[in-house]
Amino acid sequence: MRAAPTQEDIRRQNLGALLRHVHVLGPTSRARLTAGMGLNRSTIGALTTELAAAGLIVEEAPRDTSGGGRGRPSLVVRAQSQRVYVYAFTIGVDRLVAARVGLGGVILDRRELQRPGSGFSPKEVAEALGGFVAQMRLSAPHDGVCVGAGVAVCAMVRGSDGTIPEGPTQDWRNEPLGERLSAAIGMVVMVGNDADLGVVAEHTRGAAVGCDDVIYLHGDVCIGGGILSAGRPVAGGDGYAGEVGHMVVNPDGRPCRCGARGCWEAEIGEFALTRGTAKHTIGGLADAAARGDHDAEEGMRRVGDWLGLGVANLVNILNPQMVVFGGTLREVYLATAAQVRSRLNRTSLSVTREHLKLRTAALGDDAPLYGAAELAFARLLDNPLESGLAPAAG
Amino acid sequence: MRAAPTQEDIRRQNLGALLRHVHVLGPTSRARLTAGMGLNRSTIGALTTELAAAGLIVEEAPRDTSGGGRGRPSLVVRAQSQRVYVYAFTIGVDRLVAARVGLGGVILDRRELQRPGSGFSPKEVAEALGGFVAQMRLSAPHDGVCVGAGVAVCAMVRGSDGTIPEGPTQDWRNEPLGERLSAAIGMVVMVGNDADLGVVAEHTRGAAVGCDDVIYLHGDVCIGGGILSAGRPVAGGDGYAGEVGHMVVNPDGRPCRCGARGCWEAEIGEFALTRGTAKHTIGGLADAAARGDHDAEEGMRRVGDWLGLGVANLVNILNPQMVVFGGTLREVYLATAAQVRSRLNRTSLSVTREHLKLRTAALGDDAPLYGAAELAFARLLDNPLESGLAPAAG
Repeated sequence: MRAAPTQEDIRRQNLGALLRHVHVLGPTSRARLTAGMGLNRSTIGALTTELAAAGLIVEEAPRDTSGGGRGRPSLVVRAQSQRVYVYAFTIGVDRLVAARVGLGGVILDRRELQRPGSGFSPKEVAEALGGFVAQMRLSAPHDGVCVGAGVAVCAMVRGSDGTIPEGPTQDWRNEPLGERLSAAIGMVVMVGNDADLGVVAEHTRGAAVGCDDVIYLHGDVCIGGGILSAGRPVAGGDGYAGEVGHMVVNPDGRPCRCGARGCWEAEIGEFALTRGTAKHTIGGLADAAARGDHDAEEGMRRVGDWLGLGVANLVNILNPQMVVFGGTLREVYLATAAQVRSRLNRTSLSVTREHLKLRTAALGDDAPLYGAAELAFARLLDNPLESGLAPAAG
Repeated sequence: MRAAPTQEDIRRQNLGALLRHVHVLGPTSRARLTAGMGLNRSTIGALTTELAAAGLIVEEAPRDTSGGGRGRPSLVVRAQSQRVYVYAFTIGVDRLVAARVGLGGVILDRRELQRPGSGFSPKEVAEALGGFVAQMRLSAPHDGVCVGAGVAVCAMVRGSDGTIPEGPTQDWRNEPLGERLSAAIGMVVMVGNDADLGVVAEHTRGAAVGCDDVIYLHGDVCIGGGILSAGRPVAGGDGYAGEVGHMVVNPDGRPCRCGARGCWEAEIGEFALTRGTAKHTIGGLADAAARGDHDAEEGMRRVGDWLGLGVANLVNILNPQMVVFGGTLREVYLATAAQVRSRLNRTSLSVTREHLKLRTAALGDDAPLYGAAELAFARLLDNPLESGLAPAAG
């Protein structure tokens, strides 16, 4: 029951909408912005002038002017991707990634650290990411402007303050990750769960573009879910929505690390979720099954069946248009797609799955990284001229 | 990336916001509207004048003027509940309800038809509800204005057009319920699922007021769920979200009428869900358990355990602030609350349940009816002056 926005709100919304447009869709002519945003030409001109003066976009003559010939060709509006950027990070169980991502979603620089089988303490994470940022800062352009930082973490994240109650490894307990990383890199770092950010990324520039009801499933040592409903993230009261790996699908089943029995992630089985030894990866299992190994075939059948059962439950509960498999689940799904679809068709209601698409993450393992960049860009896109952005150098 | 609203959009939004305010919260002083909506006094005055001229509200001196004495007391704005109304209906498996509901959510008139054990064909539903409307129309005030009609049905509803693919009884197949009822009562009837409308009602004026992340579970012959995320309904791509009764919780369990095995509603057991004979109702079971009947005790334990398991899954997936038990699940929950909570605590993650409240529907069996009224009022509240409302008679 909030009242309608003021004139100032409207100007800010329009600036944000235009900048988001070129950020998401890439270079766009003024004519297409006019049509796409439902504003008149002079308003679009005023908005682009303001954004250009702030150094956020450039306007240039279109490269290809052969088409029409009648009248002046419409200027093309392009994000200042080299100049305006964020830092984006992912914290996996045994892998850290840091990137400098330009406006428009362009990865400009990228560093990675792997430590298979052991993982990182919060202190090690902060040191490593802080070091990466120092390196990347040196190679950034002199007139560059950093407008934010975001991190995707393979753990539950309290929505109110970015605290991590548990995991990824045992020395994480009520970890104030946002505070720690902010101190390490000298600017505010927004924190999100990897699956929650993965779904945002796949919706913005991946497999789910144009799909507003989406579930993104991310496999690592655990299974996390990111849920979009009508294009908006489903966060839950405290930000913990999407713990789909702890949906019980088999009450007398395998013990789960959470203390319950028969959780989805426990039933799919550790070999399908971890980057283990060759023998135990899903790829190794698929190879063995292709060679006629009976146990491997049975293992594949079992993994696909459980994967399909959990997906069927989520489809009945949420009626998504698309389920996207990311992280290690990408490979699991590719190896068991027929089994997954078969179980899904037996177990979900025909109407809830009628228009369902199953896809792998188009952004691959980088979906959460792109999502962390979106999180970092959010403040700029909400309010392009008041986000602490320094004026353009020239 | 839509552009910001125009001046005309803003006026409409403000009129709608003010009318929604008094519709939901009841009579409200201009001073409180000014504070609550963040608009200035003269804008509020202009809006109330327009709404009063349209016959939607009245303004009157406050009854209690003893308090202050300094200055003129602020006028109180009240919805024209007797004059402006909708028709709201519910279609249960064996019960039809029709009501005339005034602006502000006041049930002004109400009719009911029960047919235990057999149910109604679509044709019988249309005839019965058409007859009820004809009766209620006769007792409505002469200057009354009907601004909409809505129905809550115990079946899946396709979001795009209100078609019912299946159920409540076997002679329903791809039933164009909205069209049929619209023809029967001579005005457009909006169609919603009973649980989807139940959660809206409990959020607007029931147990979940102030809670924006809510799951409402409605028991009838089946279990349906209505989900709110950040105050907005989670509908799914085709409007079928919330089929929580067909979440598989026991893959080798009981056969379900949907064709799968071990669905939640199949495991909780028919006796807990249907209004059966006394012996098989949950009330009868609870009485027998209280008398020390061992089988009844075991039955109660089992029902509560399965109910708790399904709730735990939903809590892990959606992290709601509240789960509301409605329809027959109200009684089931009351009889098994300790068992439900015990299973929930063993099976859900501590963080996802930390702030969770479990409640019964404050609107009782009428939650879907109130929700159907909200559905019917939506057009008026979105655009108070252009919803085909006849001008006030005097």
